[in-house]
Amino acid sequence: MFMRELNIKAIVRQNVKKLKPYVAKEIPCRIKLDANESPFALKISDIIDEISIPLNRYPDPEAKDLRKAISKRIKVNFENIMIGNGSDELIYYLMLTFGGPVLYPVPTFSMYGIIAQSVGVETLESKLDECFDLVEEDFFNILKTKKPKLIFLSTPNNPTGNTFSSHKILKIIELAREKNCLIVIDEAYGPFCSEKGYLPLLNDFENLILLRTLSKIGLAGLRIGYLIGNSDILSEIKKVKLPYNVDAVSQYVATYALQNFYSRIKKFIREVITERENLLKKLSSFKNITVYPSEANFILFKSTKSKEIYQKLLKSGILIRDMSSTIKNSLRVTVGTKEENEEFIKALKNILDEKK
Amino acid sequence: MFMRELNIKAIVRQNVKKLKPYVAKEIPCRIKLDANESPFALKISDIIDEISIPLNRYPDPEAKDLRKAISKRIKVNFENIMIGNGSDELIYYLMLTFGGPVLYPVPTFSMYGIIAQSVGVETLESKLDECFDLVEEDFFNILKTKKPKLIFLSTPNNPTGNTFSSHKILKIIELAREKNCLIVIDEAYGPFCSEKGYLPLLNDFENLILLRTLSKIGLAGLRIGYLIGNSDILSEIKKVKLPYNVDAVSQYVATYALQNFYSRIKKFIREVITERENLLKKLSSFKNITVYPSEANFILFKSTKSKEIYQKLLKSGILIRDMSSTIKNSLRVTVGTKEENEEFIKALKNILDEKK
Repeated sequence: MFMRELNIKAIVRQNVKKLKPYVAKEIPCRIKLDANESPFALKISDIIDEISIPLNRYPDPEAKDLRKAISKRIKVNFENIMIGNGSDELIYYLMLTFGGPVLYPVPTFSMYGIIAQSVGVETLESKLDECFDLVEEDFFNILKTKKPKLIFLSTPNNPTGNTFSSHKILKIIELAREKNCLIVIDEAYGPFCSEKGYLPLLNDFENLILLRTLSKIGLAGLRIGYLIGNSDILSEIKKVKLPYNVDAVSQYVATYALQNFYSRIKKFIREVITERENLLKKLSSFKNITVYPSEANFILFKSTKSKEIYQKLLKSGILIRDMSSTIKNSLRVTVGTKEENEEFIKALKNILDEKK
Repeated sequence: MFMRELNIKAIVRQNVKKLKPYVAKEIPCRIKLDANESPFALKISDIIDEISIPLNRYPDPEAKDLRKAISKRIKVNFENIMIGNGSDELIYYLMLTFGGPVLYPVPTFSMYGIIAQSVGVETLESKLDECFDLVEEDFFNILKTKKPKLIFLSTPNNPTGNTFSSHKILKIIELAREKNCLIVIDEAYGPFCSEKGYLPLLNDFENLILLRTLSKIGLAGLRIGYLIGNSDILSEIKKVKLPYNVDAVSQYVATYALQNFYSRIKKFIREVITERENLLKKLSSFKNITVYPSEANFILFKSTKSKEIYQKLLKSGILIRDMSSTIKNSLRVTVGTKEENEEFIKALKNILDEKK
């Protein structure tokens, strides 16, 4: 008998077929400045003595304690907060709930586009200007003609590091509301930013949704992101949310950290900001590179020898991120500890000097 | 100026609009026999002394250590294993990757249908027979006429507790392969089952995928599910998988538990099986209820007074699951500790005696 072989390609959804897996490879290194993590080593035992939760029980599906701890910190009713297994999961839920088209500027955080393609919704991209700011007219035009359901704006933006002009964002939110379009402002890098953020606008604009995360401020290992929005929006998203999407240990440790470890977290954030300013000053003094302003915990810079710099830094054990596939000749370095940054600057100086 | 109000209903996807959120409410109780958890209290400190991972770093996106620990236990190459934030997340990924129609028997685990509706793929249901076994002809017929992309079979099945006939499953796998359809066997309750499971068939059937979980064997709080399948299938699913879908602490504790705590886990499983048999015997001696055979860590039974039984048990602090919306007059009780089961039996006897 002839046995027909399985043809997997034939049953993969069209939108997924074109997708490439997001590569998050672990590259061995001594100094890790590639992933926008906090550089300050932090173990569970630094935060908490004993984790008393029963592992044999399912986690709280509503993550009430964690939502209340966040609520207390940011002064928002806990019923307007939803916890995700990282913001990534919440982006999935937003697109599963509201569909597309999904509009975002480019370059920006790559997961908006990847998740849109996974879900199978149309994506609309608006190119940032030469200062990496939003092109208002382009957004207006797309809003009027293409009827997007969701807009994603990451400000400060990854990988460019700058914030988008708040007056432009405001006008986009207003027109989006008129066009019945939701706007998601991703404030992952908000803690490092000198501007106040968009939380105060939540009451005025019911189409506004905020995304935040504990990943950049020292707790990336826990995978805790959260969404803030009006209750009508949350009711719809709850329908696609997996009941037990955040494990019990992460809920517990994150809650405890927000309640009892927050002054340390804030100190870490201040140190990163101080170090970012130092790093910006030093990088700007180098002649052969272009450095971009940053309100985040990383800095984007350009060099015609970006590939060489990346490789030579890695050879000396320093891992940064090659962004040249997104922005020509660009590299992104996460702010490390004082010592790490000094070593990075020294190594970079050597590489740049070599080339003379 | 007239300010147009946001019309959220108008931008929710059609498939999501019809969906109701999965209710996983926490009902206060003294004895919790509703969620098919392990009854044996287990804290992190029972398993491990110190969790040395750095919380400030992102988790290993490939969960290599955990996959290797599982690989060693089940003797499957770790490259054929993918970890999910519970099996639930893997069900999402399967449907996002392969789409629909999705075929499953009813009644079964409710998340297959809920997730299918979240993703927006067509569902096909095949009613189980009066012994809650598969109706082979119906599967054949649907496979031939409706071209499903995915079949989900949970065996032992939730909430019925029985296994499906293996000769029927085998024939369905064969016809599914011929029709280029993937078949997912969900072995969440496999550890409590006297049959060996479908892992030995993996090499023979490239359309076969297995789902397993640590949730029923004592680690529900960690949210660790895993998928076993051939590498062509995994390559496609990787495209929709979030890079950091399993947090670092869960990876670490689960890995450690599989390496150093497995004999205790196996002992817990044996105790649950012993207790299930006791519980089955006692329940079967009651005259006014119908008890169904079980190969899982729970038992389904029927009574015309199921609502009353549920409420009266809850009043005495014992929480079981009312399944009457799925199977008329039915209740599902999770196997607890010896003491919990005795108290449950005693309370149930009192309620049934009252009614005479």
